[in-house]
This record gives sequence, C-alpha cells and structure tokens, in this order.
Amino acid sequence: MTGKFISLEGIEGAGKSTQMAFIADYLRQHQLTVVETREPGGTPLSEEIRAVLLSPREETMADDTELLLMFAARVQHVQQKILPALAAGKWVLSDRFLDATFAYQGGGRGVSAERIQALSEWSLQGVKTDLTLLFDLSVATGQQRVQSRGNARDRFEQQRNAFFEQVRHCYLQRAANEPERIQVIDASQSVPLIQQQLKTCLDKLIRL
Amino acid sequence: MTGKFISLEGIEGAGKSTQMAFIADYLRQHQLTVVETREPGGTPLSEEIRAVLLSPREETMADDTELLLMFAARVQHVQQKILPALAAGKWVLSDRFLDATFAYQGGGRGVSAERIQALSEWSLQGVKTDLTLLFDLSVATGQQRVQSRGNARDRFEQQRNAFFEQVRHCYLQRAANEPERIQVIDASQSVPLIQQQLKTCLDKLIRL
Ligand SMILES: Nc1ncnc2c1ncn2[C@@H]1O[C@H](COP(=O)(O)OP(=O)(O)OP(=O)(O)O)[C@@H](O)[C@H]1O
Ligand SMILES: Nc1ncnc2c1ncn2[C@@H]1O[C@H](COP(=O)(O)OP(=O)(O)OP(=O)(O)O)[C@@H](O)[C@H]1O
Ligand SMILES: [Mg+2]
Ligand SMILES: [Mg+2]
Repeated sequence: MTGKFISLEGIEGAGKSTQMAFIADYLRQHQLTVVETREPGGTPLSEEIRAVLLSPREETMADDTELLLMFAARVQHVQQKILPALAAGKWVLSDRFLDATFAYQGGGRGVSAERIQALSEWSLQGVKTDLTLLFDLSVATGQQRVQSRGNARDRFEQQRNAFFEQVRHCYLQRAANEPERIQVIDASQSVPLIQQQLKTCLDKLIRL
Repeated sequence: MTGKFISLEGIEGAGKSTQMAFIADYLRQHQLTVVETREPGGTPLSEEIRAVLLSPREETMADDTELLLMFAARVQHVQQKILPALAAGKWVLSDRFLDATFAYQGGGRGVSAERIQALSEWSLQGVKTDLTLLFDLSVATGQQRVQSRGNARDRFEQQRNAFFEQVRHCYLQRAANEPERIQVIDASQSVPLIQQQLKTCLDKLIRL
C-alpha cells in the first residue's frame, strides 16, 4: 500500500515546524514510517536550489526565474524522494509544497494563477497532497513569533506586511476551493488545542 | 532601432568561442555596440544556476529538473540582460541559446520536443534569435579539438559519443525546419574559410 502525502502550509511563524514534529511523532506512534522533508529543498540538489532562491543578492530575480527555480527544486524533490517514499509505503510530511507557490509567487508577487497552474501541470503531472494543513494566522502575530526567534531574515522574510497579507489571503482562497484536501487550522490557538485538531485530521487519514 | 540577437550553436569543440570573438570584432568594425554573453549563464544569478547545472554530483538530476534550471537561467538572462540590450540598440551575441536545449535535453537526453516547446513558450513568450549560426562538426573531430584543449570535463562533456550524435542530429533537424533563422556552417573547414562565410551572413543581417 502506498503511503500518504501531507504538507504543512502557512505564513512565517504560523507554527509549521512546531507541529511537524508533533505530527511525525503521532504517525510513528501508529506504526507508520514517516519521511520529514521541506520545500524548497528536500534533496541535496534541491537544497542547492533553495540556497540560490533564498540568498539576498544585488541582481533582481525575475518573477518567472523564481517560479522556474521553485519548480526545478520541486520536480527533483518529487521524483527523487517523495514518489519513491510513497511507493515504499512511507508517509511523507513536507514543510510547504505546491500551495506555497500559489500563495507566495501568485498572491505575494502577483504572478497569475494561470501561469503557475500551467507550470505546475508541466512539472507535477498530477502529483498532489492527500492532506494539506493550513496554519492560518494574522501577519502581525506571525511576525512577532518570528522576531522572538531572532534569526537573520532571508529574501522572503524581508518582504513587507502587504506581501504576507496577500500570501495569507491566497492560502485561504485555495482552502475555500479545495476544502477536502486543505484543512484550515486556526494557528492563533494554544499548541495543545491545535494538536487536538491535528489528531482528528490525522485519525481520519490513517483510517482511510 | 533595436539591435539584433545572434546565437552560436554546435557541439563541444565546434568552434563557437573561436568565432564569437571574430564576429564581435567584425560587428564592432561596423560601428555596432556588441554584448557578448553565453548560456547557461550571462548574469551573476544565471551563472550561479549554470554552476548547479554543470557541477558533477552523486545525486541523479532528473531530466525535468535540468530543463527547469536551464529555463530559469534563460528567463533571467533574457529579462535582465538580452532584452534591455536589444532595446538599447545593442547587438547581442550569445554562445548557445534555446536551440541548445532542444539539442541537448531533447536530442541528447530524450525529453520530447513537445515538452520543451511548452516550457519554451511559457518562459520566452516569443523571444527568439534573429540569426543562429550552427557550427556543424563530426563528434569525433569535436572531441579531438576539446581534448587538445585539455580542461577538466563537466557534467555534459562526460556524456558518451552516442549522446553527442543525437545532439548533432537534432541541431541539423532544427536547421532544416528553420533554414531562414538557422545557418549551418561546416565547422570542419579552416578558420579563414569559415570566417568568409560568417561575413556573408553578417553582412546580410547588418543591411536589414
Ligand atoms: N500555537 C502557538 N502559540 C504560540 N507560539 C507558537 C505556537 N506555535 C509555534 N509557536 C512559536 O512561534 C515561533 C514560530 O513557530 P514555527 O517555527 O513552528 O513557525 P513556522 O511556521 O515553522 O515558521 P517559518 O515559516 O518561519 O519556518 C516559534 O518560536 C514557536 O515556538
Ligand atoms: N576551424 C577550426 N579548425 C581547427 N581547429 C579549430 C577550428 N575552430 C576552432 N578550433 C580549435 O578547436 C578547439 C575548440 O574550439 P572552441 O573552443 O572555439 O569550440 P567551442 O565550440 O567553443 O567548444 P565548447 O562548446 O567546448 O566551448 C580550440 O582549441 C580551437 O582553437
Ligand atoms: Mg519553520
Ligand atoms: Mg566555447
């Protein structure tokens, strides 16, 4: 039996990394083999591409360049790591996947959803998540959480709040269009409350 | 008046770099401003992507990943360097461009021309060369010339001869389909003979 593919989405600081660890534990308690990964990245080559995408530089990166790099990293990740893991019956947990591209490059940068969709079809040929957990949070709260973490800010984290408002809006719109696949989690709640909801979502998927 | 866009194509060792210097000189003698560039590469970011594409590594690079990286580098090159130069009336000389992708990733790796064409349309939206000079040479002669140059061999140069035969075949096929845009030069000739032919091609383009 093939495994299930779950992605975690949401703006910076929404709690993806925090909950990913919880979800991995929970699935392992159910005797499932779990692969934890992230995008952009997930294989050594895709991580090289991630570094190109995230490092601040003087030269302006064209929106189309950014998109092609995102999908280059994703195709490599899907073909070399995600699909083989699923085929071997493993469950794959990815910190971000395709929905992030629609939210960041689409909602944030303003590339049309049609152009992203075309590239997505070219690249993924139907691969999609079984479940996407959207951690929804106000931009202000997300920023506060990230600041209290105190790392250097990458090329995306340096964007203004209006950018992240668009990202959040676009994530919610996608969830509204695909309510089965994308589960919205109110990420302003306490960690234990969120984990109760996550268990409900995961129990359903485990029983499938 | 906008400038003209010329690319030089051909297998390794065909003489692209040798003739590019000649063409640039010749155009400058005609009071034209010339930008010399190359693919993959041509901007600092595109050169970063070139390094990812060419460096040998353990992980297999999926064909689709290679294609997306090629077009990421190309879109950046076109939008940030080629189009602005042409708009400013400069002539752009590129050591390889789109035809190389059809030849190497299509003919060489076996990706279908339809898939490359789709990505090309997504990425370039109609941008094409005014003239492409195809330096046609037997694979054996090309290899001899490259070996006598004696550098380390990159990820493409490590391919077997059958790969380069496919590349050459695919280049010639494209030239047959677009005889106006793609001029085939017999690169086994002496350098002075080749340069006579190049002058004829260039004179025609300068007079346009
Ligand atoms: N429900 C929560 N309530 C309060 N704080 C939280 C909650 N979830 C996570 N945090 C804290 O907020 C910060 C950001 O969380 P986390 O790193 O998990 O977010 P993230 O979505 O992975 O962010 P990024 O996109 O930047 O990786 C961390 O310091 C984390 O401890
Ligand atoms: N017409 C020619 N006759 C003989 N030798 C040539 C000719 N043109 C170029 N060469 C020599 O062949 C070698 C390869 O030429 P060059 O570097 O110009 O090829 P290239 O197409 O740029 O190759 P690459 O794709 O590897 O960059 C050089 O040593 C060059 O001096
Ligand atoms: Mg995180
Ligand atoms: Mg050369």
